Amino acid sequence: MTKEKKITLAEGAGGEKMIEFIRRFILQNLETPSGEIPLGMLDDSAVIDGIVFTTDSYVVKPLFFPGGDVGSLAVSGTINDLSVMGSLPIALSCSLIISDGFSLDDLDKILGSMRDYSKRAKVPIVTGDTKVVEKAALDGLFINTSGIGRRSPYLDANIKAIRKRRKYEYNWPNDSAVASGDKIIVSGTVGDHGVALLSFREGYGFETKIKSDAQPLNQMIEKALKIGGITAMKDPTRGGVANALNEWAEKSKVGIVIDEDHIPFNEAVISACEMLGIDPLEIGNEGKALIAVVPELADDVLKALKATEEGRSAAIIGEANSEYRGVAMRTSVGGTRIVEPPVGDPVPRIC
Amino acid sequence: MTKEKKITLAEGAGGEKMIEFIRRFILQNLETPSGEIPLGMLDDSAVIDGIVFTTDSYVVKPLFFPGGDVGSLAVSGTINDLSVMGSLPIALSCSLIISDGFSLDDLDKILGSMRDYSKRAKVPIVTGDTKVVEKAALDGLFINTSGIGRRSPYLDANIKAIRKRRKYEYNWPNDSAVASGDKIIVSGTVGDHGVALLSFREGYGFETKIKSDAQPLNQMIEKALKIGGITAMKDPTRGGVANALNEWAEKSKVGIVIDEDHIPFNEAVISACEMLGIDPLEIGNEGKALIAVVPELADDVLKALKATEEGRSAAIIGEANSEYRGVAMRTSVGGTRIVEPPVGDPVPRIC
Repeated sequence: MTKEKKITLAEGAGGEKMIEFIRRFILQNLETPSGEIPLGMLDDSAVIDGIVFTTDSYVVKPLFFPGGDVGSLAVSGTINDLSVMGSLPIALSCSLIISDGFSLDDLDKILGSMRDYSKRAKVPIVTGDTKVVEKAALDGLFINTSGIGRRSPYLDANIKAIRKRRKYEYNWPNDSAVASGDKIIVSGTVGDHGVALLSFREGYGFETKIKSDAQPLNQMIEKALKIGGITAMKDPTRGGVANALNEWAEKSKVGIVIDEDHIPFNEAVISACEMLGIDPLEIGNEGKALIAVVPELADDVLKALKATEEGRSAAIIGEANSEYRGVAMRTSVGGTRIVEPPVGDPVPRIC
Repeated sequence: MTKEKKITLAEGAGGEKMIEFIRRFILQNLETPSGEIPLGMLDDSAVIDGIVFTTDSYVVKPLFFPGGDVGSLAVSGTINDLSVMGSLPIALSCSLIISDGFSLDDLDKILGSMRDYSKRAKVPIVTGDTKVVEKAALDGLFINTSGIGRRSPYLDANIKAIRKRRKYEYNWPNDSAVASGDKIIVSGTVGDHGVALLSFREGYGFETKIKSDAQPLNQMIEKALKIGGITAMKDPTRGGVANALNEWAEKSKVGIVIDEDHIPFNEAVISACEMLGIDPLEIGNEGKALIAVVPELADDVLKALKATEEGRSAAIIGEANSEYRGVAMRTSVGGTRIVEPPVGDPVPRIC
């Protein structure tokens, strides 16, 4: 008798185990290569027939947290997945799975957040579905938001600006398109969402100083694309900056070196991570983008980002190079350490 | 102190209570009228910027049942929601929420079904998401599939064929577009999915004779649209044919009369419903479409449907008229009874 194989929390945590699981189970079963950016590229969104398409289910716990709730998170996260592909988000769907007995006041608050964030981002919610199941089957509420977008009007000029400076074989920014020399920008402070969630959930007390950064980035990204030269974008959610940069390094077959001193952090996030023994680079963000840019235009893109509310703390944190593979960090004390992709997620159910 | 208001299973059951809930909570919060077929029309899919967009979460219990599983259901249901709008489905998303410890063999079977049904329907799955949560939060697995489609190449000619015969102010078939005189077709036997689920779940024993009808209808619908004259289409899922026809009657401001003798039923479904005291018209279907057609073209559309595997039992079951409102049925024994929209769902968690 063989033991039945079972899924574990690590397979859903956004790290290396999840990638293994996706290759073994999801791609093997589902992939029928379709579209310009197909499923197998494992990018933030797919592109098929000119439509950018993405989906995410939100199982965050608790549903309300400092700086947001599952509704604001669901709207922001899906808009951001569309935006980092270089698309203009057109519309979202909202599918609710709710347990019997769930508070209608809480539901009103969550839907109100979805409305507010969708209005602020100017991306309407156009279709939906609601299921109610027994409490034994589900404790609380899950939201799925899917989203559709169209190619940004600035994307052709953005790519032309890259091609003036180097070879670029892609039609969309994507995880496989980073090349040696590209500067790496992060659009703001790192680690806020995951640490805010963890601290609030466990009652560590940092939550008075740390709020989730969940916010839609479509308008900020539009301004950056207008400058041009952006080769790849990614929102570092589950698995954090460490996971996102490792995905770029692996798919683009480059090395990435970042400088610890240049990464913007909230001081309270650093204190909390030190106390809890967590690496802030492995913590999920929900309102930040990593942006790779050809070096000649990096300062201009940075300036455009810093002129926006969402990107005011943006910084160039490193660059890609062809000397080696993987991700390394020059530390504040003068050494260099490898930044590994997290195996699992130090903070489960943050999104 | 006021008692906190809570959601109940009835609000998710697809009947009148659900419509009330959607108007009070969902539309009040989320609606920002957008697109040609906006959220507020509560149709099977939205249409925005030329893209047909829909979403559904599948919480069926059990996950495997006679005639299918949650995977084949999720692919079929979302393709059907796109198809009944008169669109060609282009792509699906697949978002999984799985509980810790879920069998990887079962997951493989479910994903295998999704692959098979998606290949058969020629609609690829292009993007996805996977979350794993603790067993205390979720018992089993939920799937959300969203889908996108483009206007069918036959839709313009279909609408032209209507306009040759009567006024038609819409650009897409929709729930508000049925008019007096339209014939009502159902594409096959009624009640199979819900009764198969219920019987299998409760061990009534009818499941040896009744299988779920879950199947993608896009190719069948394409052939019907090619004939022309189709004014509205709808897949009678939660709340069944009774709910779907009442939605048409209410939104289109017409009466609908159907003939019991003309409705195709599997005999075993009738026996099961009689024994269980359930109205087969209130039971969900997952591989059937209701189609309203201008009378002059109804026989031709019926013939085209009957020439397909999915539509071989199709029948004209009634017509719309302006003499009264609501839905009525001429019964086999010679009387007429009102077909009310179900308040809740007699069979919960069938999709």
